[in-house]
Amino acid sequence: MARTLPQPTTDSIDLSTVLAALADPVRLEIARTLRRQTEPVNCSGVAEASGVEVSAPTISHHWKVLRDSGVTSTEVVGRTRIIQLRTEDLEERFPGLLAAILDAPARP
Amino acid sequence: MARTLPQPTTDSIDLSTVLAALADPVRLEIARTLRRQTEPVNCSGVAEASGVEVSAPTISHHWKVLRDSGVTSTEVVGRTRIIQLRTEDLEERFPGLLAAILDAPARP
Repeated sequence: MARTLPQPTTDSIDLSTVLAALADPVRLEIARTLRRQTEPVNCSGVAEASGVEVSAPTISHHWKVLRDSGVTSTEVVGRTRIIQLRTEDLEERFPGLLAAILDAPARP
Repeated sequence: MARTLPQPTTDSIDLSTVLAALADPVRLEIARTLRRQTEPVNCSGVAEASGVEVSAPTISHHWKVLRDSGVTSTEVVGRTRIIQLRTEDLEERFPGLLAAILDAPARP
């Protein structure tokens, strides 16, 4: 049985919250990594693929911030958590925003 | 004699810093107000036009965050500070980003 963890509806996704979520360099890198995935990925796979080096509690906090902000969706399947970007929801709510952020050069 | 207050060069504008600057609802509203101006405006004029109600030290902090992040440019002319969005610089550095943010609905 799969279930989706609580997340804001598309209409209630808040701009400031999304910007704050993606203002963090680690979360931004995670979001960029998620966009590159062509298959569903689990948390640890994304963290590994993104190359970010943070502790388990910290990455867990990042997942929650991303989910609570509406940037990602998390599906729990048994003991696995499948993460994906809410690309379509974000495009509907804030046209062009996610692409502009994820395509931007991250560092000077 | 007019002088421009210190600000990052276009190439050194940092994405995370810009997102954090605009994640604040008051600064976002200020940026939106600046975009609507057709003439050069001073600090107090913008604050008034934006309808934000914050103390002088707080608004002063917001100006600094916006300037340091590369979102705005401040020119000092005598005792007046003229503020403007760095629209072209931001478009060059992060194509589509500023428009996507400023055009987004601010509230659910």
